Amino acid sequence: MPVVKFYYFPIKALGEGPRLLLAYGGQEFQDIRVDKESWPEFKPKTKYGQMPILEIDGKQYAQSAAICRYLASRYGLAGADAEQNFEIDEAVDFFNDIRAKAAQVHYEEDEKVKEKRHETYSQTVYPDLLGKLHDIVQRNNGHLAANKLTWADFYFAGVYDYMKVMLRRPDLDQQYPGFAKVYETVYSLPKVKAFADAAPKTDF
Amino acid sequence: MPVVKFYYFPIKALGEGPRLLLAYGGQEFQDIRVDKESWPEFKPKTKYGQMPILEIDGKQYAQSAAICRYLASRYGLAGADAEQNFEIDEAVDFFNDIRAKAAQVHYEEDEKVKEKRHETYSQTVYPDLLGKLHDIVQRNNGHLAANKLTWADFYFAGVYDYMKVMLRRPDLDQQYPGFAKVYETVYSLPKVKAFADAAPKTDF
Ligand SMILES: N[C@@H](CCC(=O)N[C@@H](CS)C(=O)NCC(=O)O)C(=O)O
Ligand SMILES: N[C@@H](CCC(=O)N[C@@H](CS)C(=O)NCC(=O)O)C(=O)O
Repeated sequence: MPVVKFYYFPIKALGEGPRLLLAYGGQEFQDIRVDKESWPEFKPKTKYGQMPILEIDGKQYAQSAAICRYLASRYGLAGADAEQNFEIDEAVDFFNDIRAKAAQVHYEEDEKVKEKRHETYSQTVYPDLLGKLHDIVQRNNGHLAANKLTWADFYFAGVYDYMKVMLRRPDLDQQYPGFAKVYETVYSLPKVKAFADAAPKTDF
Repeated sequence: MPVVKFYYFPIKALGEGPRLLLAYGGQEFQDIRVDKESWPEFKPKTKYGQMPILEIDGKQYAQSAAICRYLASRYGLAGADAEQNFEIDEAVDFFNDIRAKAAQVHYEEDEKVKEKRHETYSQTVYPDLLGKLHDIVQRNNGHLAANKLTWADFYFAGVYDYMKVMLRRPDLDQQYPGFAKVYETVYSLPKVKAFADAAPKTDF
């Protein structure tokens, strides 16, 4: 049995998708939550100075989406063919484009710039992009791609709460019920639910 | 024979990887270069309001990395197994993290903030990240991953000139000869070379 460790901050965000996939796959793993205080010491030991890091028998795997795609290929959560795999990748990358936009606001240090950008994006950027993402979910029967459960749903569900914070939209579910559906579908899977119920509670 | 069209701005950047892959695959395609003036008219016709767009018999494929991965699976430029595919994905995502950092400078509108950020990143961010990326290339014998030619090399080669501009490092090759090697390897492939020689010249 390989020794599997997973390192991320004590939040969901980019680390939750891999955690949920490991749980779904029935893989025992050490769910190591590195807090801010311990991070500076661990940082230089990581591949690229960032987390999440998946470690299998001492070998590090970095990059959240790459990790998810890799785990999915083991657990039957990839697409059935190149066409479906494309759909998954496209949806995840599009979702990440929206995340990057929201991060441009969330991590802006200048308060005035930040507020103005939030204002602008809320009016001219988010509605269009979120609407398009929601259309994808509607077309795929409550999934991100391929009309079925894939790792894209795990990735989305993992990041969703953080996304709401960055978008400042705690009410996102109401306007986009499809998003809530994806989230619930993933977190209702028996092994995922068991993992999440036992995991430390975090707001995002 | 499917009708293949590829749409992007008249630059390399995120569009060049897919173009070079299509050329490598011997796929005839219309290399449509949409200029700034025509973009507003075309934008609403694209899937997500952005390019690149690959169109096969009228069906649109978006997202540069997803497109490259998809084409690679057809042209024998993916990894041989899940492990190699992971390596490819990880390298591409890491490269994109560096690109995103440089873009935070390049697209900053406030001139003072922009210059200060460039200064900071040049001292504290780029050297470490570029060094790590170069190590990857050295370890993989002049490739981004899997010790062989894969779509990651095409993606990198396509974006490389633009990256130099965003990093303001026209001399990047000297410090990181491995990067130049990847670039040259891709552009020396006979079908790629034939395509590039015949394509409109662009600086990046
Ligand atoms: N593209 C990477 C991004 C990873 C990333 O941004 N990690 C952040 C936390 S979400 C981090 O480690 N920050 C701490 C640091 O950079 O020191 C991925 O998807 O895994
Ligand atoms: N994540 C997307 C990003 C695409 C993107 O940023 N496209 C830019 C050009 S590089 C664009 O279409 N900009 C014009 C616009 O947004 O109106 C990809 O990798 O394809």
